[in-house]
Amino acid sequence: MKLSDLGEFGLIERIRARFPAPQRAVGIGDDCAVLPQRDGQESLVSTDMLIEGTHFLRDDITPYQLGWKSAAVNLSDIAAMGGNPTGTLLSLALPVDLTVEWIDAFLDGYAAASAPFDVPLLGGDTTASPDRICINVTVLGEAPSGRGRLRSNAMEGDLICVTGPLGDSAAGLKAILEGVERDADVQALIDRHYLPKPRIKEGLELAANHQVHAMMDISDGIGSDLQHILDASGVGAEIKVDDIPLSLALKRVCKRFGWDPLALAIGGGEDYELLFTCNRYAEMVLTVPHFVIGRITPRQSGPLFPHSGLAPESLGFDHFKKGR
Amino acid sequence: MKLSDLGEFGLIERIRARFPAPQRAVGIGDDCAVLPQRDGQESLVSTDMLIEGTHFLRDDITPYQLGWKSAAVNLSDIAAMGGNPTGTLLSLALPVDLTVEWIDAFLDGYAAASAPFDVPLLGGDTTASPDRICINVTVLGEAPSGRGRLRSNAMEGDLICVTGPLGDSAAGLKAILEGVERDADVQALIDRHYLPKPRIKEGLELAANHQVHAMMDISDGIGSDLQHILDASGVGAEIKVDDIPLSLALKRVCKRFGWDPLALAIGGGEDYELLFTCNRYAEMVLTVPHFVIGRITPRQSGPLFPHSGLAPESLGFDHFKKGR
Repeated sequence: MKLSDLGEFGLIERIRARFPAPQRAVGIGDDCAVLPQRDGQESLVSTDMLIEGTHFLRDDITPYQLGWKSAAVNLSDIAAMGGNPTGTLLSLALPVDLTVEWIDAFLDGYAAASAPFDVPLLGGDTTASPDRICINVTVLGEAPSGRGRLRSNAMEGDLICVTGPLGDSAAGLKAILEGVERDADVQALIDRHYLPKPRIKEGLELAANHQVHAMMDISDGIGSDLQHILDASGVGAEIKVDDIPLSLALKRVCKRFGWDPLALAIGGGEDYELLFTCNRYAEMVLTVPHFVIGRITPRQSGPLFPHSGLAPESLGFDHFKKGR
Repeated sequence: MKLSDLGEFGLIERIRARFPAPQRAVGIGDDCAVLPQRDGQESLVSTDMLIEGTHFLRDDITPYQLGWKSAAVNLSDIAAMGGNPTGTLLSLALPVDLTVEWIDAFLDGYAAASAPFDVPLLGGDTTASPDRICINVTVLGEAPSGRGRLRSNAMEGDLICVTGPLGDSAAGLKAILEGVERDADVQALIDRHYLPKPRIKEGLELAANHQVHAMMDISDGIGSDLQHILDASGVGAEIKVDDIPLSLALKRVCKRFGWDPLALAIGGGEDYELLFTCNRYAEMVLTVPHFVIGRITPRQSGPLFPHSGLAPESLGFDHFKKGR
């Protein structure tokens, strides 16, 4: 059997099955692994790999943007647990004909994404690559014990919320791939794709509220990501697709090019907004900007987005089953 | 300027200069980053990347060996700090035409290298690669505060020791690249290259002795690695090259093919034995098997291996300056 038949989630299941579950820790399957410490804190750790040709094309993304994004998508995993980032490690495999100017701009972007959160670079690895740039970032963080917000915590009756508009990043990617003319709206969408903002502050505030139950960041698309929460929590959901927040830039660009904004908002990934569930009374007093898009129901078997007119395969992203 | 002119250590210096030094932690430049915890423990973390075509060729290494080596070289970094490994994260970028059998064998090797130390797999990332296999492992560990053995701790008068014979791994690689016939000796060297044993137990025992001062694992070759200790500690060294331990297999294979065993032992890397310095009285009571190969002197400017007949460029390995 080929990896293309197994698929990404099949591979993850195969890895999970091959290793014993950690005794003291939350392991594979959430935004971060969680290791309890002896002092009432939990250590958080997560890692992400970016490969030239899979995640980015060297001619499309500036080195600054690539550096920013490499740090930001990892910091977003700490945000998704309601934690504080404490450091990152950066592995770089680089072709030897890369210029030092390119590397400096990459490091500038990486440092700029890290700086707002005072996250030091703790270490890493540097090596030659025969051709493609390959980047791996590991991020460490911490949270008070019991504060980390797992995907398995959603409760029946919870409201489902997101911290910002969805679909911008996917539309930005589509604009890049289709080479459309870049006016201010298109550029705003492209910036959302290349320069995502990790919602660290929002994650900390949300996790401080005991009635915020499950939380994750939206990296694969809400169609796929919400399903992870439902599966892990053993619940179902009702989504009001009309309540999914869309930016003005997305609406205008979609209207101009005849794109489907809902398909981008639901099926497209990399928005790096936080998706969370919370008690309906807690929701009324949340100070973090957010949008209610549905509610948690008993476990169900029907399609999650029955009225969106989307084919199931457009919901989320499998690295091994679809090209991008 | 191109990366090939900057070199690996130039790149690392550039990265180090671009980021503020962490406030509470030991950052870039040792085997692991060290983060003090509130409970008298130190967290250790390190990361290593393996790229097809740079670190291995798919036809030369079995997936089991590759999985083993990916875990082992990272565990070795925890050994080098005198720590206990607590978990690993595995990022895999894989071509979609890879077979599931290949992946399973890879995971078997990874699990086999982790099992003796009860190290759980805590998480990771899986993604498609357009062509080359790319692996990144991050390892976490812990040590009692002050137990971590830094490269900067070597003291004048210390003896310089290694935990086992050197050069086997480099000879194994040479045997693979030159396609020599594989008798038992050659196979033993190849196994040392593909299935290195992390010296976790040895590292823990050595670090428990306060008079063991500096420690690191030998990954780039002792010529280059010892220089890191000397630079970090501001000292010099005298090495008795005749005292560098060589295995019988290495001696026999070198004699047969006319290879220089000392050049392989000093300039070749990936032995993953521990290199450490210690007080001469402490050395007499060490229970860990070891070989004394020299002593720490005042800072000096002469060549480290004056009598080995080796050109300076054969001492150690720079990923961006030499092909392999």
